[in-house]
Amino acid sequence: MPADNLAHQNHNKTMTNQSTLYQNLDNYIRNTRNEFEDKLATLVETPSVSSDPERAGDINRCGEIAAQYLNDLGVKAETVPTPGYPVVFGSLITDPKNPTVTIYNHLDVQPADASEWRKAPFTFYKEGDRYEGRGTTDDKGPAMTAMLAVRYAVDKGLPLNFKFIWELEEEIGSPNFEYFVKRNIGHLQTNSVLVSDTIWISRRQPAAPYGLRGLQGFLFKLETHAKDVHSGLVGGVARNPIGELAQVISQCYDAKTGKVKIPGFYDDVVPATKAEVNSFVNSGFTTKGYQKAHELKSIRPNMKSEADVLKAFMAMPTFEVHGITGGYTGPGVKTIVPYRAEAKISARLVPKQRPAKVARMVKDFVKQINPDVKVEAIQALEPFLGDFEGPYADAARAAMKFAFGREPAFTREGGSIGAVVTMQKHLKAPITFLGLSLPEHGYHAKNENYDWGQTAGGIKMFVKYFEEISKLK
Amino acid sequence: MPADNLAHQNHNKTMTNQSTLYQNLDNYIRNTRNEFEDKLATLVETPSVSSDPERAGDINRCGEIAAQYLNDLGVKAETVPTPGYPVVFGSLITDPKNPTVTIYNHLDVQPADASEWRKAPFTFYKEGDRYEGRGTTDDKGPAMTAMLAVRYAVDKGLPLNFKFIWELEEEIGSPNFEYFVKRNIGHLQTNSVLVSDTIWISRRQPAAPYGLRGLQGFLFKLETHAKDVHSGLVGGVARNPIGELAQVISQCYDAKTGKVKIPGFYDDVVPATKAEVNSFVNSGFTTKGYQKAHELKSIRPNMKSEADVLKAFMAMPTFEVHGITGGYTGPGVKTIVPYRAEAKISARLVPKQRPAKVARMVKDFVKQINPDVKVEAIQALEPFLGDFEGPYADAARAAMKFAFGREPAFTREGGSIGAVVTMQKHLKAPITFLGLSLPEHGYHAKNENYDWGQTAGGIKMFVKYFEEISKLK
Repeated sequence: MPADNLAHQNHNKTMTNQSTLYQNLDNYIRNTRNEFEDKLATLVETPSVSSDPERAGDINRCGEIAAQYLNDLGVKAETVPTPGYPVVFGSLITDPKNPTVTIYNHLDVQPADASEWRKAPFTFYKEGDRYEGRGTTDDKGPAMTAMLAVRYAVDKGLPLNFKFIWELEEEIGSPNFEYFVKRNIGHLQTNSVLVSDTIWISRRQPAAPYGLRGLQGFLFKLETHAKDVHSGLVGGVARNPIGELAQVISQCYDAKTGKVKIPGFYDDVVPATKAEVNSFVNSGFTTKGYQKAHELKSIRPNMKSEADVLKAFMAMPTFEVHGITGGYTGPGVKTIVPYRAEAKISARLVPKQRPAKVARMVKDFVKQINPDVKVEAIQALEPFLGDFEGPYADAARAAMKFAFGREPAFTREGGSIGAVVTMQKHLKAPITFLGLSLPEHGYHAKNENYDWGQTAGGIKMFVKYFEEISKLK
Repeated sequence: MPADNLAHQNHNKTMTNQSTLYQNLDNYIRNTRNEFEDKLATLVETPSVSSDPERAGDINRCGEIAAQYLNDLGVKAETVPTPGYPVVFGSLITDPKNPTVTIYNHLDVQPADASEWRKAPFTFYKEGDRYEGRGTTDDKGPAMTAMLAVRYAVDKGLPLNFKFIWELEEEIGSPNFEYFVKRNIGHLQTNSVLVSDTIWISRRQPAAPYGLRGLQGFLFKLETHAKDVHSGLVGGVARNPIGELAQVISQCYDAKTGKVKIPGFYDDVVPATKAEVNSFVNSGFTTKGYQKAHELKSIRPNMKSEADVLKAFMAMPTFEVHGITGGYTGPGVKTIVPYRAEAKISARLVPKQRPAKVARMVKDFVKQINPDVKVEAIQALEPFLGDFEGPYADAARAAMKFAFGREPAFTREGGSIGAVVTMQKHLKAPITFLGLSLPEHGYHAKNENYDWGQTAGGIKMFVKYFEEISKLK
């Protein structure tokens, strides 16, 4: 952890007016394009897959490269150790009297199965304005975009201090992020946090989320005998653990509609207000575009309107089966009675629902309907609810309108960013989301990509946002 | 099991040639032991795993070795080609006027996962009277036992002709056995068929089954989108194919009790008669021993008595889930919504149930409850019901009593032998089952074994059976 470095060289020039601040911005953006592409390419070609222990070297190397990028900008940065992978932390104090914004991104990435991609996933490909490769949109591209906006703002003498938190374990649920925050809390004071790791609903309409769903993962395990047995010999007598788990799952929820049947599951859910739903609907969302972006051939039959769909993934909890192991998995049928089975399950949670309470509820329910099923609660993430009104939301609105010509729709994200909840808890500062990813960028999917349009607009957006919040005390 | 039946040898003075026939049998059995072990070892060490295409060479070699064994005995034998693996067929006509018995065994074996076995599965281990290795009890050991009994009977001038059918595709559902039978029907005329590929209920009590369950395999397939998707982005909206299959499975049957809920499923089931159930119960069966043999920690709660258990696996149909593929299968939880899922399912069927009718029934039902689930019917085997009364059953009774000191219980097998149904259909001759496998032999399981007690008793049993049926015209 670097000492907070005071009084940075010549950044104390007096902030002039808006025309001075934005005078050279378009030029700067144009001139910085090669540098942006080079830096992003280097990061993409460092496969920082945090879920793969064999990539440990790449992940550490990615952190070192990123810290060097910050240092080259005049940010005092280093990789801060944790019990897992380090966190890249940087600090640029233009004047202790200025307010401070902390910019959060992550530089680890999802795994990529090369056989599914049309090109090598860890090679950076540029095709016109399109950049392809794992991590381009999630979240290396947005990190570089924000960083280059900071350089411009600092050079222009904007009265704002900057801190950077670039995590390397976000894709595995941020297991050591709270450790990092608590151990380094003295260096993390900030007036606000800016997170750039979210997705617009549509390219035509910027979106600024103010909420995230939480998560409670579960393993449902059932072992009914000692080994797989021949169904001719024991079929009819022997218990079938896959059959019983299928039954338990069907008692937990109606897969057709997604409706959870566990008593009390919806008790703490606060339905989205009419104003919120209106804001979701005005995000440029169409069910058709959403299905196309995620390649969903069909959706649940109770999703009858745009509002139904938006509420379902932004503001309602879920019960989801990710896989069932145990039993025969080869081609055709092998007539065994499996001896064990494990269902991989999670519940996405919405604000006011608590993972620990939901975990207890699920355990109790399963115990009641099939006491032999062992329920293990793993990987809990609290949901998050921020503001879509107030000065930081206003700054976000102004910034997006300035850069992209339209005010953002305030939405919620269906996913979870564990680090956000940790920062809310310990930094006690408002958190704003200014994401740049688009549905067609293949977030978490094959052929992930990012583009120059979002980069150029993004730099503009961040500069404007920095200006707006530099005026808040 | 020691052959404790010397007393039985001379008890029937009215059979004039009995003393001649059985005079040297014990000596023969003793003297033939080394040969039996050598021949079985060679077969076990030829890994004829019919489900593994990489074992094609071994399977063909196994057939050649077996044909040579028969030729060495004076049987005219060869490997008869089919579109799949060949069938070893042999014929020994002592006199065209004599009746003919056709002996069926199979020489292909189940796969074996070496990591689960305490010794290498395809190495023959002898420990005292115990022989261990894949195929020892299913069905290479019984095949060699019957073969060596034939040599003795022929040497003694028993007025009986012998044909051998040794299949190499039994463990994969006999896909080409009907082809073999129809193409070679002119050579297959026989007065009776003897099948030695079944299991006693208890070592203390011989069992002769007269029925087999049939089978109808199914793949339930559901594809709801194009690729795995991030459950944060689509959870709540996207259909979950594993969840929906779990629901379909739970609508098809109650996994806890095994009760099938598909309308009409039990319509053609003929319940076992009281006499049949009594015979099952008198087989030496205990639920405790059965659970121990198959390592079943618990069984279905509705299996309250021995009769419940016996009826459930001998005389009632089942619905069984063998596995569910699709989705995440690694450690922990990965929060995807899978894009496809496939459940591997089968129904064991009892006499009068027809696989084709059950297939239609299941397809219609699933179509009605979830029309997007594609049901593929694969691997159909008709059930079989033979006689437990009549001259061949009497011969089996006499043979088992002679060799093992106790008359057999007439039972049914819960498994299926597709070839039996084919022989019944085309050979139109009575079929008798004289099996030698014991529950503790690990049929289809790890550490498969056979033993000298069953071999020695088995040779005696077969010789006696041959004598009895040589008198039938």
